[in-house]
Amino acid sequence: MPAPRTIALDSMGGDHGPEVVVAGAAISLVRYPNLSFILTGDETRIKAELAKHGNLASRSQIIHTDTVIAMDEKPSQALRRGKGTSMWLALEAVRDGHANAAVSAGNTGALMAMAKLVLRPMVGIERPAIAALWPTVRSECIVLDVGANIGASARQLTDFALMGAAMARALFHVERPTVGLLNVGVEEIKGADEVKEAHALLKGSALGSKSALPLDYRGFVEGHEIGQGVVDVVVVEGFAGNIALKTAEGTARQIGLYLKDAMTQTWMTKLGAVLARGGFKTLKEKMDPRRVNGGTFLGLNGIAVKSHGSTDPLGFASAIDLAYDMAESNLVERLSGDLGVFQDVLRLAAIANTEAHVAKS
Amino acid sequence: MPAPRTIALDSMGGDHGPEVVVAGAAISLVRYPNLSFILTGDETRIKAELAKHGNLASRSQIIHTDTVIAMDEKPSQALRRGKGTSMWLALEAVRDGHANAAVSAGNTGALMAMAKLVLRPMVGIERPAIAALWPTVRSECIVLDVGANIGASARQLTDFALMGAAMARALFHVERPTVGLLNVGVEEIKGADEVKEAHALLKGSALGSKSALPLDYRGFVEGHEIGQGVVDVVVVEGFAGNIALKTAEGTARQIGLYLKDAMTQTWMTKLGAVLARGGFKTLKEKMDPRRVNGGTFLGLNGIAVKSHGSTDPLGFASAIDLAYDMAESNLVERLSGDLGVFQDVLRLAAIANTEAHVAKS
Repeated sequence: MPAPRTIALDSMGGDHGPEVVVAGAAISLVRYPNLSFILTGDETRIKAELAKHGNLASRSQIIHTDTVIAMDEKPSQALRRGKGTSMWLALEAVRDGHANAAVSAGNTGALMAMAKLVLRPMVGIERPAIAALWPTVRSECIVLDVGANIGASARQLTDFALMGAAMARALFHVERPTVGLLNVGVEEIKGADEVKEAHALLKGSALGSKSALPLDYRGFVEGHEIGQGVVDVVVVEGFAGNIALKTAEGTARQIGLYLKDAMTQTWMTKLGAVLARGGFKTLKEKMDPRRVNGGTFLGLNGIAVKSHGSTDPLGFASAIDLAYDMAESNLVERLSGDLGVFQDVLRLAAIANTEAHVAKS
Repeated sequence: MPAPRTIALDSMGGDHGPEVVVAGAAISLVRYPNLSFILTGDETRIKAELAKHGNLASRSQIIHTDTVIAMDEKPSQALRRGKGTSMWLALEAVRDGHANAAVSAGNTGALMAMAKLVLRPMVGIERPAIAALWPTVRSECIVLDVGANIGASARQLTDFALMGAAMARALFHVERPTVGLLNVGVEEIKGADEVKEAHALLKGSALGSKSALPLDYRGFVEGHEIGQGVVDVVVVEGFAGNIALKTAEGTARQIGLYLKDAMTQTWMTKLGAVLARGGFKTLKEKMDPRRVNGGTFLGLNGIAVKSHGSTDPLGFASAIDLAYDMAESNLVERLSGDLGVFQDVLRLAAIANTEAHVAKS
């Protein structure tokens, strides 16, 4: 039997609050009976929901609070009055070792700002990132950063590579995940120097210590290759990453509309669609955004997962499952070790470089 | 009857050369009988293809050359030995007033570099951009830049807005096209200062002279809104723009695969798919990348359209049609006027700003 795992849930976050959060927890508990929960928020409302879900109450502890971060609150404002809110208390439970991870469907900017303040970035990480699970024709891949920051230096991109690889190990159970840098295909295009530099860093360090670095760097990938699943981890700065993610979501929705129109065109297509409904069900499940619900904050001393604000219990349960998988894999501890290795690799590369220069002169 | 229009075609560009280019021209000529062509490249091969397409030969002039830019040639290399190649000659025909636009399926980087050199950027434009037609649930929109440059200053982004609006007028026949700036949604996120600045510029100038500025600025849009068709023109720098475009293409292909799998699942879904084939045909046509084949180079003293290298005659004809539409609308002349207006607007805004400062002090 796996060790007990506790997940702290911001029960007031999202568009629906405890109703969706508690029902989501009930679904996850069926999947992982070793789970227990810390539920932060309005005790009366949480208790009312818990009463609907059998033994969930016996696996849950409530931390009451009256204050909540609004969905449209600005991060700076949220930070000022954040202490003691349901979001803050969930993160605090992780910081103080009472929970292995936190999940919130509250607003992204506020959650990121608060997570940075409460959990603090790991030593050696300048900038935490938000990672998304991305469905591919093979299975899934991880894309980061999808919106924690705009722009990233070469060094930050290599940190993202390590962070993404650590998450891939946790979720995909591969020891040396494949990693690609998102780039544009046109050759010799000016700019994107930080991407080229990160490429050199990752390539060089992989050559230097093939066994030591916990990832298999595969070079540049382009936008259309993300969904092909050519690598486990796709690294990109947050502006382009966020746009790519939302563009893919929008395109999927757009094609869904096209398909619906096409199938209701004539009585014949309607009949065909009825007969093929098993296939459409499979397709719908494959494209269901709830299956991969959750942006993960990486690079902090603790795990925090952001669920879509408008999700339903099934979607919220996906976010809890994600948090569970990452807690199970000791992601934070392993990542901390990886960062150490990488710093050694960089140091060795610098020494080798100097020696080469000395030998030349 | 519309005035005669001549399009110069790089007959050697792309994966298939004259075979596809000439067949594409034949399709466009049926649609627009006032078209004529200048075909640059290997005379023998071009003549052999022309012989297959009825009266096309009588509407075509061949400029022979033996030299061709290879599909994998680097732009810098292509530039050095570019003069006299089929690509160069097509652009030269535009520069010298023999053709109203040029179309090539040759390599993008080389074509961009050569087009800049031969056609030269318009006065007032620092950086030309590549614009793509993007299918939306409403119809189509224009997205730029999709890969001419990495990064863009606020001023360059506002130039892109004007350039995109000029193209939208040409293709969508609206006098004041709606324009949005692509951005990420998280509020108060650090960075993307140039996007914020461009927002202020466009907003300010729209307020200042509602009737003068030839576009209707609608503020920020996000990745998922492109395909919804919320605006006619989406402005973004080339790194994120290229990634968004390729990601959308990749997602469409991915869902196509899902759909195929789903419809061949059981004999029942197969039967349903047969009955619904009319609907699937409509869907296929809607998602057909050949319908919107062609990246347009904007901001040069002449029109150049890049077709996909691997396209077929139907796709190449789309690229010719695009070039035709833009030539029809006197895009370059109108854009030049718009840029003048915008510079006046900026000057007036600067004066107003100074006066406000003086009044305050």
